[in-house]
This record gives sequence, structure tokens and C-alpha cells, in this order.
Amino acid sequence: MTYVIGVDFGTESGRAVLVDVATGAELATAIHVYANGVIDERLPDDGARLAADWALQDPLDYIAVFQNAIPRLLSDTGVDPAAVIGVGIDFTACTMLPTTADGQPLATIPEFRHEPHAWVKLWKHHAAQPEANQLNALARERGEEWLPRYGSKISSEWFYPKSLQILDEAPVIYRAADRLLEAADWVVWQLTGVETRNACTAGYKAIWSKASGFPEPAFFAGLNPELASIVDDKMSRDVAMLGTAAGELSSDAAGWTGLRPGTTVAVANVDAHVSVPAVGVVEPGTMVAVMGTSTCHMVLGDQLRLAEGMCGVVEDGIIPGWFGYEAGQSAVGDIFGWFTRTSVPPEIHDRARARGTSVHAILEQEASRLRPGESGLLALDWWNGNRSILVDVDLSGLLVGATLATRPADIYRALLESTAFGTRALIESLEAAGVTVDRLVACGGLPDRNPLLMQLSADITGREVDVAASSQAPALGSAMFAAVAAGSTRGGYESIRDAAAAMVRPHRLTYTPNASVAGVYDALYGDYVGLHDYFGRGANDVMKRLRTLRTDIDDASLAPAPGSVAG
Amino acid sequence: MTYVIGVDFGTESGRAVLVDVATGAELATAIHVYANGVIDERLPDDGARLAADWALQDPLDYIAVFQNAIPRLLSDTGVDPAAVIGVGIDFTACTMLPTTADGQPLATIPEFRHEPHAWVKLWKHHAAQPEANQLNALARERGEEWLPRYGSKISSEWFYPKSLQILDEAPVIYRAADRLLEAADWVVWQLTGVETRNACTAGYKAIWSKASGFPEPAFFAGLNPELASIVDDKMSRDVAMLGTAAGELSSDAAGWTGLRPGTTVAVANVDAHVSVPAVGVVEPGTMVAVMGTSTCHMVLGDQLRLAEGMCGVVEDGIIPGWFGYEAGQSAVGDIFGWFTRTSVPPEIHDRARARGTSVHAILEQEASRLRPGESGLLALDWWNGNRSILVDVDLSGLLVGATLATRPADIYRALLESTAFGTRALIESLEAAGVTVDRLVACGGLPDRNPLLMQLSADITGREVDVAASSQAPALGSAMFAAVAAGSTRGGYESIRDAAAAMVRPHRLTYTPNASVAGVYDALYGDYVGLHDYFGRGANDVMKRLRTLRTDIDDASLAPAPGSVAG
Repeated sequence: MTYVIGVDFGTESGRAVLVDVATGAELATAIHVYANGVIDERLPDDGARLAADWALQDPLDYIAVFQNAIPRLLSDTGVDPAAVIGVGIDFTACTMLPTTADGQPLATIPEFRHEPHAWVKLWKHHAAQPEANQLNALARERGEEWLPRYGSKISSEWFYPKSLQILDEAPVIYRAADRLLEAADWVVWQLTGVETRNACTAGYKAIWSKASGFPEPAFFAGLNPELASIVDDKMSRDVAMLGTAAGELSSDAAGWTGLRPGTTVAVANVDAHVSVPAVGVVEPGTMVAVMGTSTCHMVLGDQLRLAEGMCGVVEDGIIPGWFGYEAGQSAVGDIFGWFTRTSVPPEIHDRARARGTSVHAILEQEASRLRPGESGLLALDWWNGNRSILVDVDLSGLLVGATLATRPADIYRALLESTAFGTRALIESLEAAGVTVDRLVACGGLPDRNPLLMQLSADITGREVDVAASSQAPALGSAMFAAVAAGSTRGGYESIRDAAAAMVRPHRLTYTPNASVAGVYDALYGDYVGLHDYFGRGANDVMKRLRTLRTDIDDASLAPAPGSVAG
Repeated sequence: MTYVIGVDFGTESGRAVLVDVATGAELATAIHVYANGVIDERLPDDGARLAADWALQDPLDYIAVFQNAIPRLLSDTGVDPAAVIGVGIDFTACTMLPTTADGQPLATIPEFRHEPHAWVKLWKHHAAQPEANQLNALARERGEEWLPRYGSKISSEWFYPKSLQILDEAPVIYRAADRLLEAADWVVWQLTGVETRNACTAGYKAIWSKASGFPEPAFFAGLNPELASIVDDKMSRDVAMLGTAAGELSSDAAGWTGLRPGTTVAVANVDAHVSVPAVGVVEPGTMVAVMGTSTCHMVLGDQLRLAEGMCGVVEDGIIPGWFGYEAGQSAVGDIFGWFTRTSVPPEIHDRARARGTSVHAILEQEASRLRPGESGLLALDWWNGNRSILVDVDLSGLLVGATLATRPADIYRALLESTAFGTRALIESLEAAGVTVDRLVACGGLPDRNPLLMQLSADITGREVDVAASSQAPALGSAMFAAVAAGSTRGGYESIRDAAAAMVRPHRLTYTPNASVAGVYDALYGDYVGLHDYFGRGANDVMKRLRTLRTDIDDASLAPAPGSVAG
């Protein structure tokens, strides 16, 4: 018997899973919650106060996951560490940090510890928007060939806006950083002593492509002369393919984890992308939807196609041999959570309590009884802007059709439907560009909690929706890549395709589109597209004007807060 | 000392007020709740079941108001009945009924009592929509000159659709009805023994004008040959001017009320319209807004102007000597009530309970702290369709700008603002047609309960908003008309102008527009108009399509219910 361990680094905690290489059976799971969590108000130990939109983490929290969760897996199962042939990890992205040449995070060096820019910038750190705006303007002006591959807009969440923010606001830190890298690659470095750059984050977050590499120094120089050499000085032009080994477990790391030194460590990966093989998708035609607070959609294709509003298309970025397309809806579960929290009257809370269930469950039950169109409502699912296909954070939510007879379950259903219409819009954008989407596989937290959403997704997209077997797809996917990195000679697999064939269990459940409602939903989708285009493509920019009014007031009422304020 | 009594017949009850003729001081108020209330499910005594949209009343409930409330006024105050020089009444409208030639309601005759069409049709009986549609189509086709005076659309609530519904669905009742008349005129008939038709309901509800009378028989014949003679056979071409005497109190009515036989009884009036002089408005330039679940707006003008979307313009219809313009917003307080009931989470209810106040008060307090534009939201106030200026019941509510940070108070404020934008739209429509609106006077239930709404109305319309002194304007207005009907020789007044000068107390409160927010509200109003025109004038009929989908489902799930179903 041989085993692999996958470690999934999330926003609040890390989750390690011990997996049987032969069958994919998940023998044990251990979760370690980050002591410092998401740092968005003050640096630890009453340090500097952070401005709005900041979100940092403590790199030592990641090491603590290895130190705590992996030993627990071994003790819980009694598995012999010698039988563990590999470790793989996946991470949120772009979650990045500055380090010294030997990988020491600047946040752990006393002279930099008080400086927010020395810490890990979490994926949802949104304070680099000015830098993103500058970068996008320059890229458009220069007609950069890579821009259309990213929906013609680089997000403030990604690698270069975050790096440029460090240079803009804390040049001392930028200069002290010998290396700037993804936390994904940093934790692999800590396990192996070897610095690598994985193809997934390089491609999706740092504008790398197999065909043309990184953006050229002249582009970076246009942003800031000091940024010109960022790739050569602080990154690496060697990008490691997914499924290869980054190195072997160092004796230090063996000490933390209880595993054997020399155990294979796979090249790092991203949580959403590593879920694709974990749900059995290794070929074009099937879209994987990681559905949670937001939803990430991935599909494979055999050629480079430029579909509107993708987050990115990267050759070998998800499964070697294919172009990986990523799209996203910036709020899904978050919209339902917002509604449940802010807009549901006491009677429904009372009913939930009386039945020992959740408000969501009561609303879902009532909404399930409605027929398509019966709510009389239609919504645009833009409570957190629109990622795909409009790539516009300034858009906002819309609800039309309310009457004095409208009930909470009507609105709840309209919100569920709106997210499914949003999914259909991005599928249609992909298909118009020649990327086929025949069916969907859903994973993440929502599919189990919201069966009505799953049925509506099938009905509205007109496609079968499978629910993945594993409830911890990212960790399983990381374990699968660990088995591939170990290779068949050590008891693993030759390819991720082989690993998927052996290690992925059949889908738990399939939602089939109900043909009898297709006509009503086609009509409603037509109206969704009408509103989507009217409010999203410039015919009426009321959402932007409302946003500007609101932001002007917010700005005026906040203290001037450039980056951070001494606490 | 001389006194007058005003009686205001509302939807659920009648309210009588005893007023000092010299000063307008309201000495006592007595309310009598209708025993049978609004009959919208079954006829009394387990009678026929009513279909959706029906709303009836029992005419004897009105008589009970005289029998109960007026004696209470006299006993509560000890006023000598001989000192009461007049009685005036106002009523909801169009609230109408079929009677025999001597005024006996058909509903009180055993052979007709089981038939819903024999009962009083309350103003909010909405089941005559097919008849209204037929009437409007024919009027458009014939190019009837009167149609533009009513916003180019006759409401299903008004006199002829209701009459035609009787003929369509219960011809026996139509034929048995020697008279068809407003309940307003019917109660005056019961007090005096004299049948009159007041100019206000004739003008606003039965398409009468001083210049051209009623629609011609050929028009009615086009709807149904049997309807051709409705005016001559079942109504009257004699229309009585407001402020004149309908007759004197009969001995029967003196017996019910404790008043002296021979006491002057004024010609009937309508609750909203009679409020105009009651708040001191007897000249053009000031709009009176009766603000409650819905809002009715009235303003006087010196000429006939055709402004878009008015409910009606009637010469002498409000104050003799002027053209009375009426406009309306079909939901105002109802929208805030809907929101409070359906969309406010338990925390806010708990906070209201803890502070011993209402949810409205908590929301208002929080919403008051927001600056204009800070909510980031904009709404169309069409939760119950749009009366003025689009005259379209199929329109529905819209909210744009929601984000994950949107709170209930943000939405509450946006809803308040939306109704003020709606008021501004109808003011601008009037002014574009040449009807001046320099300031507003608000009365009804909302001004006291919702000071923020009043301030927003001033800020958004850019006009001062006075709050009327009397909290029972309709009853006071009826009392004032009673004093005019009695005339100066009996201790009353020569004209309603004189009565207003003496009997109306100064406004309690004035809300002044805040100049510093005018710019933001002009910008938001621009966006309101943009959405109003896009969704309301045919560019995107999504609201109608949603309504049709919803209605189709409702219709399919209801039993076939033509008018009524035997219970």
C-alpha cells in the first residue's frame, strides 16, 4: 500500500488529506486554523492599522499547518511514513510575499515586521487597484498581446499590481525583497529547500505563457523604471510544469511533519485549478465549477481561443497538454448569505429555529415550490461586480419585478436563478469562441447545501450538472499530483490522466435539465441578457455613477489613509 | 356659537368631527368601524365566495356611522343640536352601488342579497379590468375628447367599468337598478331624501365636465347597446356644485343622529379632494399631497391643460372657480410597509423592541444618518404599478446598486427617495404643461410618522413642504363645506375661500429644501428619469413580460372564477 498527502491552503485554515494511491480513498483529514487568520484591521501584536481593502497573512501560519496537520494524519491512521510517497499542495492565489534570497519572509525580520508591505498579501487584498488601473492602461496603450488572454483586464488581486503597490508605497521593502513569490511556491520551498515557480500561478496570476514567457522589461519599465527587472531579479524565468517534482522533503521539513526525508514534493498548484482532475476532468468538454462564496469555472480546450471576459487562458495551466480556460462569478454563495443575513424577517428565522434547520433551508424549501417565472422577479447577480464576462468590479446588483405581494422566497429564488443565468452567459461566451461546454461538474461547498441551486443551474444552462464525489476536491487533487510527481517507479502514476482514472470516484449525483421549463428559462435568460447588456456594456452607466457617489462619500468620511496608518 | 359636522367615510370606518364654525377648532371626533368592513372573501352570513380582486361593502354600515358617531359627538361635547348649522360628508371614490328609484340598495332586498353585484363596489374593487380595457380601447378608437383629461386611461376603479361589469356579469341586477350612484351621493340622499350627484365624483370618476357633460350615448352603446342610456336612465344630468346644499336633514335622519330636522346637508365630496381647502389651499400654485399607503396629489389651475398621466382634470371639481388637477402614486406608505414586513432582519426588530419603538423608527433613524448618494442605491417606486405619470398597472418595482455591503437602512432610504423622485416626476409633468407647483402641503398619515420622507420630499422636489395642522383633513374639509352650504345667513360662510380663511389653522411645520444636496439629488433624479423612461415607456418591457409569466401561472393554478363562485 502506498499513500500520498495533499494539503489545501485556504483563506482561514489549511486542510491535509491522506489518500490511498491505488483507489483515491481519503483515509483521514486534518485541519489547522491559522492563528493569525486574515489580517485586515491591524498587524499582529497591536501593530500598524491597515486601510480599507487590505488583507494580509502570517507566513508562519502556513508552516504550522505542516507541523500540526500532517503528524495528526499519521497518528490518526497509523500509516507508516515510509509508505507516503509524495506530498502535494495547493493554495489560494495570488497570495504572495517578499522574502530574502534564502526564502526568509521579510515579515519575520524584526526591522520589517512593523511594515504591512512585508507581510503576505492574501488573494483578497484589494488595495492595489490604482496599480492595476495603471497596468491595464499601459497594456492597452502598448497593445500587449497577452492582454486579451486575461479578459482584457488584469485584476488588482494579481501578482504585478501587488508587487507594484509594494514598490509604490514601501520601496524599502521592495528593495529588500530578493524574491517576490506566490505563497504556494514559498511553502514548497520550505518543504524542499528548492525555489520553484509553478506554471499555474505563473500563467494565471503573473502573465506567463509557454509560448511567449513573461511580459517584457520595457513594459514593466513603463510602470516604474525600478520594476523593469522584476522577473530577472526577483522571480525566475524557469517555470515548473504541473505534476513534476519540485524536490524532496528536507530533513527540517521531515522533522515538522513526521514524514521521511526524501519524500517527493510536487510543484505547487492553485486550489481551484487542482480541483479539475480531482473531479475526474482531464479532457475538454466538461466545465468544472468550484461553487462557494464565489464561483470559479474551468474548462479545457485544444487551442488558444479568445473568449470574452475570461480570467485567463493558460497552456498547460491546469492539465498538461491542454489550454486551461478560467472564468469566474465574483459572488454566488455570498449573495445568498447577504440576503439571508440582511433581508429575511423574524418569522422565517423563527420557523427555522422551530424546525431545527437553517434560514437557507426554509427559503430553499419555499422557493422550490415556485414554478419558473412565478416569482415575477429577475435579478442581475452583480452584488460583488461582474468578473466573467464583463470584468467590471463597479457593476452592482439589480432586482426588477417587485410588487407588494413579493415574498422573501421569491427574491431568494430570483437570486439563485440570477447566478445560474450568469453561468449560462459565460458558457455562451466560451462556446461562441469555440470552446465547447457539454456538461458541468460542481464541487465546493454549495452543491451539497443548495440542491435547488444545482437543479436551477441544470435547467437554466440546459446541461447536466454532476456533483463531484469528494467534498475536499482541492486536497485530493494535490494528493493526485503528488502521486504523479512521485511517478510510477515509486508506486505513483505516469500522468494526471492515469491518476484520475484510478483515484477519482464516480460522481455522487447528477442534476438533469427539466425540458418542460426550458422555454420559460430561455425567455427569462433573454431578459437577463437584455439587462446585462444594457447595464453592463455602457448603454446606461447608472451603476457606475451610483458607485462613484457612494465612494466619494466614503472617501470624504475616511481619514486620508495611504496604505496604512501607524496604530 | 355655531358648529358644523364633517363625516369622512374611509375604507374601514367612518369618522365624524364636530367643528367650531368661527375658528375651525375640532371639538370632538368619533369613529365608527364598519361591522362588515371590506368584503373581499365571502358575502356576509356565509354567502357567495368572491373571486380575486373583488372588494365590496355593506351600505347599512354607512348609515350606522351616522347613527353612532354623530350622537357621540353631541353627548361628548354637550353641544346643542340647534347650534349645528350643517353636515357635510366625504367618501372614498369611486365607491358605487345599485339602488331602486327611491334609493333602497339592491343588497338590502332579499331576492338580490345573495348576488355580489347587488352590493357596494368599494373603490379598490379591481375586478372590472376587462371592462376598463374595453372602454379604453373604444375611447381611443373613437378619439373621445375627454380621454386626455384622464391621463388617456380610465381606471378599472371608476364608475363605468364597474357599471359595465354589473351589466356583463349580472344583467338582472343592472336591469333592477333604477339608479347607479356613488355611495357619497347615496348617504346624502339618505340624510335628506334628495338624490344629488356631486361635481367631484361626477368629474373625476364618471367623466363629466362642466363644458361637455357626460360621454354621449353612442359611446356607451359601443360598449353594450343596453348601456347606451345609462346616464339618462340610471344617473342624472344635473350635477350639483360643491359647497351648495343638497337638502335638509329629514326627520328620519334627525332621529338617527340627534340633530335637528332641517339642518343643512352639503353636497357630497371625495376624501382626497375635500382635503385641499382643509389644508388652506384655495388658489393655484400649491400642491396638496394626501400621503398614506398611496399618495393623491391635487393642485388648482386657471385653465384646462393636458399634463401627461394625470388622474383627471375637472373644472370646479375641487374648488369652484378653478380647474382641479389630480395625480397619484399608487404605492407610497405601502412600499415602506412591505419592506418593513418582509425584508428586515431580526436584529432590527429586536432593537426596536428594546427601545420601545417601531421598526420604521429604527430604519428611519439609521437612514437619516446617510448622506444623499451614500446608499449607492436607486429604486423605481412601482411596487404597485405607476399611476402618474405612466398610468400603467403592469409596471413593477426596481432596485439597482446593491452590493454585499448594502444594509436594510440603505434600501429603506432608497425606497423613500424613490417615492420623492416619483412626486418630482409628476410635478415636472404638470409644470411642463403649464400648471405651476411652487410648494407642497402634506397631509394624511405619513407626514407625522415619517419626517425623513418629508425632508427628502423637500430636498428632491426642491420645494418647501408644509405639514397641515389638522390630522383629519377630510372631515374638517367636509365640515367647512357644510358651513358654506349653510351660508352666511345661517352663521356659515359665503364661499369655501372665506371658510378656509377662518377655519384653517397655520401649518404645523415646514420642511425646507437643503440647497447643499440639490446637486446630488438632481443627478440621482436624472438617473431615476433614465430608468423610468427605459422601463416605463417601451424601450424594455421586461416588467410586463415578468408580470405576464407570473399571471399565467397564477391563472393556471386558480379555479376558473368568473366573478363569483357559489359558496
